[in-house]
Amino acid sequence: MRNIDVCPTPELLHLYDLHNTVVVVVDILRATSCMTVALAHGVERIIPVATLEECRQLQQMGYLAAAERDARKAEGFELDNSPFSYMNPELEGKTIAVTTTNGTLAITKSRAAIKVIIGSFLNLGAVNKYLLSQPYDVLILCAGWKGKMNLEDTLFAGAVVEALRHDFTISQDTALIACRLYGEAQMDLMGFLASSSHVHRLHRLGIREDIAFCLRQDLYDVIPVLRGNSLVCM
Amino acid sequence: MRNIDVCPTPELLHLYDLHNTVVVVVDILRATSCMTVALAHGVERIIPVATLEECRQLQQMGYLAAAERDARKAEGFELDNSPFSYMNPELEGKTIAVTTTNGTLAITKSRAAIKVIIGSFLNLGAVNKYLLSQPYDVLILCAGWKGKMNLEDTLFAGAVVEALRHDFTISQDTALIACRLYGEAQMDLMGFLASSSHVHRLHRLGIREDIAFCLRQDLYDVIPVLRGNSLVCM
Repeated sequence: MRNIDVCPTPELLHLYDLHNTVVVVVDILRATSCMTVALAHGVERIIPVATLEECRQLQQMGYLAAAERDARKAEGFELDNSPFSYMNPELEGKTIAVTTTNGTLAITKSRAAIKVIIGSFLNLGAVNKYLLSQPYDVLILCAGWKGKMNLEDTLFAGAVVEALRHDFTISQDTALIACRLYGEAQMDLMGFLASSSHVHRLHRLGIREDIAFCLRQDLYDVIPVLRGNSLVCM
Repeated sequence: MRNIDVCPTPELLHLYDLHNTVVVVVDILRATSCMTVALAHGVERIIPVATLEECRQLQQMGYLAAAERDARKAEGFELDNSPFSYMNPELEGKTIAVTTTNGTLAITKSRAAIKVIIGSFLNLGAVNKYLLSQPYDVLILCAGWKGKMNLEDTLFAGAVVEALRHDFTISQDTALIACRLYGEAQMDLMGFLASSSHVHRLHRLGIREDIAFCLRQDLYDVIPVLRGNSLVCM
């Protein structure tokens, strides 16, 4: 039987075998939620990069560029890290270079996998359906916060493990921990997250609507997938 | 207010600031449970070392030596990693060199802390009482399994966070995750752990009584503390 596992932060990714594995990268608040929204609303390509410098280089080559550090828009870039910023019809057909504090690093670290896809609550059902339909092991990679775990990404990982547990083997405790936590939280994700560190961080910056939106489930059917150095619709 | 945090595996310890911090090292199944039992039953000193080679050197210097790898006793050593092995009156007043797969590495990595103490369910109440009485921040360091998280150490961390949450600030999600998980599990730790990877591993080796024993709470009042390179009674 195929395995499903959870890596709680990119800082531990070297301990996981990516051979024969589809990696689902998740950064609920807010990078992978934004990427899902962007492709669903007609953005053609997203180029995730780990550093501000790479992002600036792509901007100089003529791409639109989005950069976030510590939950704020980095200076000199067009786009921030709010899902609402990616619903703009002017972005249709465009390519956007993106760097965020945690999410894009998780993507660039996963390149050895068979396939890298982007998960969020916004496309949870589509992600689960795809994972069930394909033959490989699954690793959900939580972007976390600067190398440490976070609650919202762990909960998303738990939602996927919960949905797939009858069709996959769970061989490591991180997947169990995520699944148990989601079981406790699923009736009230927003309430459960109220005490999390990143929700506090975003509230201090006046960012509230983004959180409620990023916790909505199955708004979109798109699955962003890494092809070469770009995320495109699967 | 003092902070309490949880490091889910020694592999992430470099992300945590050990200044002004008391580290509680936990490896429930079974290293830190054994250490608690040993000191409670009269062993005078435990020298934790990270490698089999160091352990062998101390053995050649005349110390008793205990070595475990992958849940089995390593060849050529006197003692294994079962708590029942440390209830032997012949060990009273003795010094024992110990190396285990995960627990002793966690101890040797923590040396920069103000103080390193050893926690287990067997001395949970004494550990909580001490942490409440002292002025420093607290970090519970889970030994995990070969760099990954495990369920039983996370549950112990959650039990400490739960007991201290009104007197300490919780600023990171790992502590929240552990606390929530313990809240769900506390009425039936054994049942909750039944699906964990290390319980399966120990069952395959026929080790069952150790697990039930290591989940018993407050059997002992001793707190092993690191002094120089040795663990002694606080």
